[in-house]
Amino acid sequence: MRIEVLDHGYVELVDSWGSDERFIEAARMSTGKGFQGWDTDLRLLRYLWTHKHHTPFEMGGITVQVKAPLFVFREWHRHRVPFSYNEMSARYIPLPNENYLPTFVGVSLRSHEAAESANNQARGAAARKCSQEEAQKWLEELEEVYKIAQAVYEHGLELGVPKELARLSVPVARYSVMRASSNIRGWLAFMTLRCATQAQWEIRQYANAIAKIIQQNFPHTFNLWREENDS
Amino acid sequence: MRIEVLDHGYVELVDSWGSDERFIEAARMSTGKGFQGWDTDLRLLRYLWTHKHHTPFEMGGITVQVKAPLFVFREWHRHRVPFSYNEMSARYIPLPNENYLPTFVGVSLRSHEAAESANNQARGAAARKCSQEEAQKWLEELEEVYKIAQAVYEHGLELGVPKELARLSVPVARYSVMRASSNIRGWLAFMTLRCATQAQWEIRQYANAIAKIIQQNFPHTFNLWREENDS
Amino acid sequence: MRIEVLDHGYVELVDSWGSDERFIEAARMSTGKGFQGWDTDLRLLRYLWTHKHHTPFEMGGITVQVKAPLFVFREWHRHRVPFSYNEMSARYIPLPNENYLPTFVGVSLRSHEAAESANNQARGAAARKCSQEEAQKWLEELEEVYKIAQAVYEHGLELGVPKELARLSVPVARYSVMRASSNIRGWLAFMTLRCATQAQWEIRQYANAIAKIIQQNFPHTFNLWREENDS
Amino acid sequence: MRIEVLDHGYVELVDSWGSDERFIEAARMSTGKGFQGWDTDLRLLRYLWTHKHHTPFEMGGITVQVKAPLFVFREWHRHRVPFSYNEMSARYIPLPNENYLPTFVGVSLRSHEAAESANNQARGAAARKCSQEEAQKWLEELEEVYKIAQAVYEHGLELGVPKELARLSVPVARYSVMRASSNIRGWLAFMTLRCATQAQWEIRQYANAIAKIIQQNFPHTFNLWREENDS
Repeated sequence: MRIEVLDHGYVELVDSWGSDERFIEAARMSTGKGFQGWDTDLRLLRYLWTHKHHTPFEMGGITVQVKAPLFVFREWHRHRVPFSYNEMSARYIPLPNENYLPTFVGVSLRSHEAAESANNQARGAAARKCSQEEAQKWLEELEEVYKIAQAVYEHGLELGVPKELARLSVPVARYSVMRASSNIRGWLAFMTLRCATQAQWEIRQYANAIAKIIQQNFPHTFNLWREENDS
Repeated sequence: MRIEVLDHGYVELVDSWGSDERFIEAARMSTGKGFQGWDTDLRLLRYLWTHKHHTPFEMGGITVQVKAPLFVFREWHRHRVPFSYNEMSARYIPLPNENYLPTFVGVSLRSHEAAESANNQARGAAARKCSQEEAQKWLEELEEVYKIAQAVYEHGLELGVPKELARLSVPVARYSVMRASSNIRGWLAFMTLRCATQAQWEIRQYANAIAKIIQQNFPHTFNLWREENDS
Repeated sequence: MRIEVLDHGYVELVDSWGSDERFIEAARMSTGKGFQGWDTDLRLLRYLWTHKHHTPFEMGGITVQVKAPLFVFREWHRHRVPFSYNEMSARYIPLPNENYLPTFVGVSLRSHEAAESANNQARGAAARKCSQEEAQKWLEELEEVYKIAQAVYEHGLELGVPKELARLSVPVARYSVMRASSNIRGWLAFMTLRCATQAQWEIRQYANAIAKIIQQNFPHTFNLWREENDS
Repeated sequence: MRIEVLDHGYVELVDSWGSDERFIEAARMSTGKGFQGWDTDLRLLRYLWTHKHHTPFEMGGITVQVKAPLFVFREWHRHRVPFSYNEMSARYIPLPNENYLPTFVGVSLRSHEAAESANNQARGAAARKCSQEEAQKWLEELEEVYKIAQAVYEHGLELGVPKELARLSVPVARYSVMRASSNIRGWLAFMTLRCATQAQWEIRQYANAIAKIIQQNFPHTFNLWREENDS
């Protein structure tokens, strides 16, 4: 199950363990009983979730492989506990020449939204909005920087500059790849922060992909999370 | 897969995820390659382990159900990260009347070992050794305390004392049940501490049961751990 | 600063680090500014708290020494991240002969509350209430078990039974001592769960003592927590 | 206490809590005793360290402010437990125009070392070495990329491209600032990995600065760490 994200990225399920039933079984440890069927136990699952009894949701999880730009990984890696990561390393191989380039429609649209939001709060001069033509032109400049940065990267490698130094010009838009693993409690906390409208649009696309995978593997739990995060 | 431990306890596999191959794949993220077959990759696994590159071993794990005396759980629960626990609660149900009773041979034997060890270090009077007859007699006293404690427990419950208070007389030998989950890095750290001869004999039996389960599900990783911990 | 808790217990401040100002400074890292004075920054602190931006509250913490019954420590130790613990060990010294004994008024009162609550939910026979006389009598039985358990404990030690086994009869009411350390984010989560009315009354007394220490050392943060947890 | 690192970076102590004595006190919890003076207790501290009884070293810690290039922060943030971080965010302010530029002597020297090491292992063509002149020339190219990337960054901001997108061209050499906090067990693990010769030279300079601060505040513990990590 691989979900394409942004221009070159993806999220792919590697492993899934546990299940909605396992969360019920874990919660029922306290009274020595097991899973009783969803007729009764959907209410228990809801009770656990709404009363923030979150430890049973640690009894399942997923591991994914993710390809994303560095600035997305920088935000992702702030999720410390209970996450595990293994990532491609520019110390050991030259990072492949793929960089994130937004669409000009997207850049312009988000500029307008940001300006609206800023103007609503501001007391001074109105925030500037970027037209589609300006966005288009700026993205051409951006592509040009990517090329120049890559040329210097490759030139360094040819000259014998160690990989770990040659990479200094690599932009934060550069794609990398990692495996990430966590229990479901951790993934739901990730989704709560990163599917939210305040999250940067790019990491939101990744969080939405994670949400789809959770939905397939832990449907009852996913529904509870969605109810809370839709309103 | 249920392994009997002590007089009333057990360890039972609930879920296992990931594999030795997954650890290799995670480690290979750094260079963008995958699993190459054990001919080559056994060397890589050994390298990871001996050079303490432990994060790839977080890409797999097991969940178990455990029945053990409270004093064993007290030691177990000191393992905080990356462990998850859900346990039976004496606030919600009366703990079943099962208590750990060692064998008289075991008590006497361990008394002799402890005395040897103490006498080797001591400067004063020799440490006392407990004979098998004395051990037998003391265990009868112990069983008697268990009975009296249980009678007071049950009497309290009958009188209407809340469960959470009625339990005050319950001895640390009382059995309880939990689910415990962790990644393999966590379980190996648990085994390193709790399979060791310095660990209390009782928790060592549980750690050995965990080791058997790890051996079945992560055989190559287990072998590396055993080489290091046998010497 | 030592606060007495229950019949033999206490909570005592060992170390405190960071401050409300440090939380502001940490949050201001994102925009490269520092602390601006409480006139402005009280609003920022409130924003952080109410929008669940909890990481700045990791930039301070306290270490305490705690004497409490084992059943309280069992609940306490479920707080795993970011807590650190070092506790007295019955493997190395005989646990001092101090056991928690509730008051007969307390036992009777809590029996009545529990019965009310159960009867409100129940469909069957009414839950029993424990009178003060019954509570008094039961506590005498409890004290008697404590004595017998202690006699068997001491007898085992005299015979040469190793400490780690001799303790088997020790009741969960037995007092032990530990140091516990965490950042403030962790302590506030502890307080949210353990100062709540659903928490067992005994651990609530300890959580309230922790709350007093937090109030003295992090007054602005404490006020925000109290506003949220009073309603 | 601020220690300059690289061309624009630093490590500065913000808070320190606990002490070598506190580690002894925490370890002595197990037997109910306290600190006895360094005449006796240096041996205990060594015992704890060499036998990997690491939890007492969680009873103290430091918080630092760090200015470092993004590629250094990327490695730093892999230290998850028990670390806390708050960093400057390019979503909220434009990152100041400061980028790490190595010295040409350094680049050439490390190229030679890397080539030696590669040639010792290789079967194919010899790895190339970068002369000082080549290094000098390549660094000029690098500075030029930094300028172009910055121009595009600023141009985007002027046009009204949101900060979070305008930053896409920012190189991983760009400096950022953060607060980082951990207990001493965590910092020692950080130092063990990041002061080692296998660590990238740049993060090693930061780890050495941390080591100096630990040495001043926890001198006995630091000495034990150094003995182990010098050989």
